[in-house]
Amino acid sequence: MADEVILLDTDFSIFGMRVRVALAEKGIEYEYREEDLANKSPLLLEMNPVHKKIPVLIHNKKPICESLIIVQYIDEVWKDKSPLLPSDPYQRAQSRFWADFIDKKMYMPGRKILWTPKGEEKEAGKKEFIESLKLLEGVLGEKPYFGGEDFGYVDVALITFYSWFYAYETIGEFSIEQHCPKLMEWAKRCMERESVSKSLADPHKICDTVLMLRKKHGVE
Amino acid sequence: MADEVILLDTDFSIFGMRVRVALAEKGIEYEYREEDLANKSPLLLEMNPVHKKIPVLIHNKKPICESLIIVQYIDEVWKDKSPLLPSDPYQRAQSRFWADFIDKKMYMPGRKILWTPKGEEKEAGKKEFIESLKLLEGVLGEKPYFGGEDFGYVDVALITFYSWFYAYETIGEFSIEQHCPKLMEWAKRCMERESVSKSLADPHKICDTVLMLRKKHGVE
Repeated sequence: MADEVILLDTDFSIFGMRVRVALAEKGIEYEYREEDLANKSPLLLEMNPVHKKIPVLIHNKKPICESLIIVQYIDEVWKDKSPLLPSDPYQRAQSRFWADFIDKKMYMPGRKILWTPKGEEKEAGKKEFIESLKLLEGVLGEKPYFGGEDFGYVDVALITFYSWFYAYETIGEFSIEQHCPKLMEWAKRCMERESVSKSLADPHKICDTVLMLRKKHGVE
Repeated sequence: MADEVILLDTDFSIFGMRVRVALAEKGIEYEYREEDLANKSPLLLEMNPVHKKIPVLIHNKKPICESLIIVQYIDEVWKDKSPLLPSDPYQRAQSRFWADFIDKKMYMPGRKILWTPKGEEKEAGKKEFIESLKLLEGVLGEKPYFGGEDFGYVDVALITFYSWFYAYETIGEFSIEQHCPKLMEWAKRCMERESVSKSLADPHKICDTVLMLRKKHGVE
């Protein structure tokens, strides 16, 4: 029996894009279902009753939630192609540490840049965001990917922020390339992979939407 | 060559205790080093320069940080005894989901109970804490452990909160047993394991320390 794979997601989601990249790396066919977060589908509420959030991967009727957990699941189930986590336990722990770091130290500062008015909080978010990126640039070092010679778990966790870089830069009035030139080279290297370029949302559409929502909610 | 295993920790840490329980389950000998968080050791700052937090497991000179990542590392390295995560990828994803839930939905509400003065915020923390416990009680169902017949990863993640229950109940003025009788039975079952009872800090010492600190900082 062929696997039935359904992804509940939204186009712009940093977390949903991770699942799309992982599925594309593994060459898995799946049905994509765009959710309207203002009007969540009964299926989403049934499949993720705890957090009620996308992304949810539904594999043969069974739901898996939380993007990094889904990516690990994909890597464990479809293990013969494009391994994402390294096989060595220490390297695996390091990969998990940095993916966790990305969730803890990039997402919230990024939100502050986008959704708070000009002032201290926005500047603090910008500072923390840039510091996190610089730290990650140091971890990357001279390697082509965080996974070493191969694109891996940390690359999946981080690259989806790239589609939001234009919005962060436009609204935060700064240049990521100026602070982290090597990280930008890494991002462009990742974008040469079809698994990434086809999975990431359009940076201009994201930025336009954020600007529109800021205007609507009177954030200046 | 014998493994060198050092744990940087503090006695009362919910997160550090997880690592102690996992090491005890696996029967691993290690050197315990109590950290003074007001005066962190140079070794801690060197081994966890990113978060500067305990616990840190140092295995043959190499550091692993973040409690759930450490527990997974221990399970992967010492895999022949007392497996903590199930072998099936879907069950593994479910275990990771619930451990992540415990981190996201129990720790902060617990802090609110302990460290905020009487009022709305404290009550909101209490409500969320109890709701999370009830949800977990439902997940446990009629099984002896979250891991099923065997003590596993989610059991490790949750049981260390048990040593803080007395403090939550005393300061929050509520009874966990009244809300979640089956979860309390589970906790007592876990405490029959030497790996747990020897690893958990003394609930009365924890409560006394919290009360002393609340008084010192004028939290009423």
